[in-house]
Amino acid sequence: MDRPNNPELRPGDAYVQSFARGLEVIRSFNAQSPRQTLSDVAARTGLTRAGARRILLTLQTLGYVESDGKLFALTPRILDLGFAYLSSMPMWNVAEPLMEALVEEVKESCSAAVLEGTDIVYVLRVSTRTIMRNSLGIGSRLPAYCTSMGRMLLAGLSDEEAMALLRASKLDARTRYTLVEPEAILAKVQQARKQGWSLVNQELEEGLVSMAAPVLNRAGRMVAAINVSGQANRTTARQMQDAMLAPLRQAAQEISQRLAM
Amino acid sequence: MDRPNNPELRPGDAYVQSFARGLEVIRSFNAQSPRQTLSDVAARTGLTRAGARRILLTLQTLGYVESDGKLFALTPRILDLGFAYLSSMPMWNVAEPLMEALVEEVKESCSAAVLEGTDIVYVLRVSTRTIMRNSLGIGSRLPAYCTSMGRMLLAGLSDEEAMALLRASKLDARTRYTLVEPEAILAKVQQARKQGWSLVNQELEEGLVSMAAPVLNRAGRMVAAINVSGQANRTTARQMQDAMLAPLRQAAQEISQRLAM
Repeated sequence: MDRPNNPELRPGDAYVQSFARGLEVIRSFNAQSPRQTLSDVAARTGLTRAGARRILLTLQTLGYVESDGKLFALTPRILDLGFAYLSSMPMWNVAEPLMEALVEEVKESCSAAVLEGTDIVYVLRVSTRTIMRNSLGIGSRLPAYCTSMGRMLLAGLSDEEAMALLRASKLDARTRYTLVEPEAILAKVQQARKQGWSLVNQELEEGLVSMAAPVLNRAGRMVAAINVSGQANRTTARQMQDAMLAPLRQAAQEISQRLAM
Repeated sequence: MDRPNNPELRPGDAYVQSFARGLEVIRSFNAQSPRQTLSDVAARTGLTRAGARRILLTLQTLGYVESDGKLFALTPRILDLGFAYLSSMPMWNVAEPLMEALVEEVKESCSAAVLEGTDIVYVLRVSTRTIMRNSLGIGSRLPAYCTSMGRMLLAGLSDEEAMALLRASKLDARTRYTLVEPEAILAKVQQARKQGWSLVNQELEEGLVSMAAPVLNRAGRMVAAINVSGQANRTTARQMQDAMLAPLRQAAQEISQRLAM
């Protein structure tokens, strides 16, 4: 869906700006900076100290930030915002048991992701108990161009939309196998669209092979992708495809069918 | 930590109000109302239609909401906000492998939660593959007064603070076993503090038994609780305590020790 082209409300609008800055301040906290001073927040967001102070005190007044007077930290109330989205996805309840059955069958972790800008965002993850664990949690991001779920999700767009996203992406050669030419990546996206699945062999990181299949809603629109991945030093990509592609596609189809009910 | 008592910034302040309303609109989307019209949002938040429209368009301009012109829905970008909080918890990476090992050992699901007002909020969950699954996802809430993690977390406060939270809670008799007198619940909280663990037997729902143990930070302050739970119709509370309490407390201590490193 499109961003609004609304004459009365533009990104430069003071109201939009102040709200955007508030959300920016929330996003400035992370694993490297779980607790920040006023100056830290100002530096990370590009706000003035006075502006950062006003937003931090606002967030504190609303209970989303706590402070000992010097250091500020987010409170768990923040989860009410993300969770509102997660709990509003019908996929959530439908997909989890089917993904668990898939993990049981193929003995590899399974994730679900959606497209957000040029990234994929993980919305569900079922891990196996093997030592080589995928540590990507819900809400974490990876670029779409070099991931199997990303290419599958790009296949749900038109060629023009997919190409626009690829051109807006930072196309890094993450490994010696990574495709970095938009045209070459688009060819893989078209192939994924045609065959109904996607396989990425060590383009995100050395040794990692991943396959993805689409989840469609009632209207036939792609709403998510699910994947399984494995280590190329344990099994070749070909062996993985033979063993896991059919169960993966079957699980994705079942999730889609239940979403359509 | 306390809410600020700041003469220049009060809950009635126009800036704080408008930001609060924006977050309220985000929270108005949920599993029952994943897609809302302007009128739905206005009705659920108590805003005027003009006010709701302004906020929805702001959120759409910022990419947090999408619309087909009539219905509005949240986008996955919202997950960045919750992820900012989760990834800023040092506990996140340390706890998961230890909780997985615990699930492997006791064959029951394990969760971690923190206190937020009178509720506990789930921040991590490792489920088993049994049919009787706990469907509480990350970010979901339960009341503190009748849950094992809630009572454990209340034990990390002073008696005065715990009592104030209990008096602010809606104490419902959810089952015939639920304690609803603040004094009786406080006695259980004191017992949990003294023994270093908490057990709640069918006070949240019939058949559900849960045990919790505390996770402490470097300074010895309780930052979270972890629990395991089981079904009383499969095993009695006493049998569960015998089988699972020692591994649960061991896991909580190991998480605390690693947090202190």
